[in-house]
Amino acid sequence: MTGFRHVALIGPGLLGGSLGLALRALPAPPQVRAWARRAETIVDLLECGCADMASEDLNAVVKGADLIVIATPVGVLPDLARRLVKCPGFAAGTVVTDVGSVKGCVVEKLEPIFDGAGKGHFVGSHPMAGSEKTGVAASRGDLFEGAMCLLTPGKSTDRKALQGVDKFWQALGMRTLQLDPEEHDRSVARISHLPHLNAAALVMAALDEDAQIAALAGPGFRDSTRIAAGPPQMWAEILLENREAVIAELIRLQAELGETLAFLDKVNEEDLRRYLAEAKRRRDLFSAEIDS
Amino acid sequence: MTGFRHVALIGPGLLGGSLGLALRALPAPPQVRAWARRAETIVDLLECGCADMASEDLNAVVKGADLIVIATPVGVLPDLARRLVKCPGFAAGTVVTDVGSVKGCVVEKLEPIFDGAGKGHFVGSHPMAGSEKTGVAASRGDLFEGAMCLLTPGKSTDRKALQGVDKFWQALGMRTLQLDPEEHDRSVARISHLPHLNAAALVMAALDEDAQIAALAGPGFRDSTRIAAGPPQMWAEILLENREAVIAELIRLQAELGETLAFLDKVNEEDLRRYLAEAKRRRDLFSAEIDS
Repeated sequence: MTGFRHVALIGPGLLGGSLGLALRALPAPPQVRAWARRAETIVDLLECGCADMASEDLNAVVKGADLIVIATPVGVLPDLARRLVKCPGFAAGTVVTDVGSVKGCVVEKLEPIFDGAGKGHFVGSHPMAGSEKTGVAASRGDLFEGAMCLLTPGKSTDRKALQGVDKFWQALGMRTLQLDPEEHDRSVARISHLPHLNAAALVMAALDEDAQIAALAGPGFRDSTRIAAGPPQMWAEILLENREAVIAELIRLQAELGETLAFLDKVNEEDLRRYLAEAKRRRDLFSAEIDS
Repeated sequence: MTGFRHVALIGPGLLGGSLGLALRALPAPPQVRAWARRAETIVDLLECGCADMASEDLNAVVKGADLIVIATPVGVLPDLARRLVKCPGFAAGTVVTDVGSVKGCVVEKLEPIFDGAGKGHFVGSHPMAGSEKTGVAASRGDLFEGAMCLLTPGKSTDRKALQGVDKFWQALGMRTLQLDPEEHDRSVARISHLPHLNAAALVMAALDEDAQIAALAGPGFRDSTRIAAGPPQMWAEILLENREAVIAELIRLQAELGETLAFLDKVNEEDLRRYLAEAKRRRDLFSAEIDS
C-alpha cells in the first residue's frame, strides 16, 4: 500500500515510466495518470503500460491526484511547479515530490512556489536508481527494488506529507534515509559524483592509444576505472546539476593529491606511509560498515 | 626447465623465498643457494625449504652459480652488485637479474658495474607478483604462476642472457613482456602506482568520521577505492622507488581533474559530455583488449 489513491506522473522518462510500471504492479495499485509534453511520449507511456491514462493536458492529469511526482530534469522543475499551482484541478492538500539527483536548489526554489500559492506540500526525493538507458521505453518495474531513496525535508516541509512520501517509496521496495538538502548534495557529490569524475580523469591520464599498457593492468586498475564506462550525457547533466558541491569535492581531491605529490617530491617516506595507512584505516572501516 | 643449473638468491624476502620454493618444486630443479645478511633469515630460508643451502658468505653462495637473482630492495642493489663482482667465485659468464619494481635507475646503475668488471651479464626483471605479506616466512611456491614478468633490456644487454632470463621466468609459469627500462617505469607508474595513490587520495577526500555516508555508497565507490586497503609500508617504498615517473603521472592526473573542474566552473555541458564520452571510449577499448 502506497498510501495514495491517485498518482500523477509529470514528465516521465526512465524513472517516471518505471515508477508507473512499479505502481501498477502493486497488489492494490493507485490510479496512475501521466502528463507528457510530446505526443509520442504519450504513446510510449500507454504502450509500455506505465499509466492508466496519459495526456498533454496538465490539469486533466493532476485533477483529483493526492500525489504528484514531477519526474522531469531538475532544470525544468520550477517552471512546471508554477504551471501546476495554476491548475484548477490541483487540490490544496496534494502532496508533491520529485526524483531529481540534486536537492538544495530544488527545495529552495519549489517550496516558496507551493507555499506562496497556498496549495501543495512539497517533499524532495532522490530515488538512487537508474540505468545506462534513458527514456520511457527503457522503463523497468523492478528499478526501485532494494535501492536507496533519499528524502530531503526543508524548514517548512509538512511532516505528514514527509511521512507519506517516505511510506510511498518504501511500498516500492526502497530503503529510505532523510537528509538535509544541502547535506544531501554534499554527500552524493562526495560518494558518487566525485568518484565518477575521478574515474574518467584517471582513464584519460592512464590510457591513451598505447594498446600494450592494457597487458600490464591488474584487477586494481580495472576496478578503479570501471565506472568511467557510464553514460556520458546522463553524467554530464548530473555533475552540472550538482556543480557547486562537485566543485568543492574536486578541489578537496586535488588538495589530497597535492599532499601525496609533496611527500614524493620531498622523499618523505614516513609521512607517505602514514597517509597510506590512514587511507587504509578509513577504507577498512567503511568495508566493515557496509558489510554489517 | 629453467635453463640454469645453479641459482643463487641474494637477499631473499617474500619474492626471493617464493622463487626458491617454486624452483625447488620443478621436475628438474636447479640447485638453489641463498645469501642473507642475518642469521635468522638463513634459519627461515632453510626451515621453509626455500634453498638447498643458505649462508652469510656471499662468495660461497655465488661460487659455481650460472644465474644470480638479487632480490633485495632496489636501494641496496648497487652496493650488492659491487660486492658481487669482487667475489672470486663469481664467474665471468654468469647471468644476473633482479626483482625490483622500478627499472630505469637499476639498469642505469648496474650495467656499468658488471660491464666495468668484465664479469656477469645483467638483465633487469620485474616479476609482477606479490602479497600483502612480507618476509621469507610468507613465501609461496605458486606466487608467480600466471602472473606477468616485465624484462627491461638496456642498450648493452647481452641477447643470449636476455633470452635465458625470459625462459627462466616462463619456466615458473609467468608470461613475459620486454620493455625499455624508462618505458617500464612510466607504464607501471601509470597503470599501477598512480591508481593506488589516487584511490588513497579519493578515500581521504570522501570518507571521514561520518558513518552515514557509507549507507549512500554504491558498488562504484566500493570498487574505485578497493586498492586503498593495500599494505602502506610496501606501497610507500614502491611509490618512492619510482617517484620521478609517479610524480609525472600525478601531475598529469591533476591536469585532467583541472580540466573537468573548468567544465563545471564554466557550466560547459557540451565539453564535459565530450570528455566523459572520450573516457568511456578508452575504457571500453581497454575492456575489449583485456578480454580478448
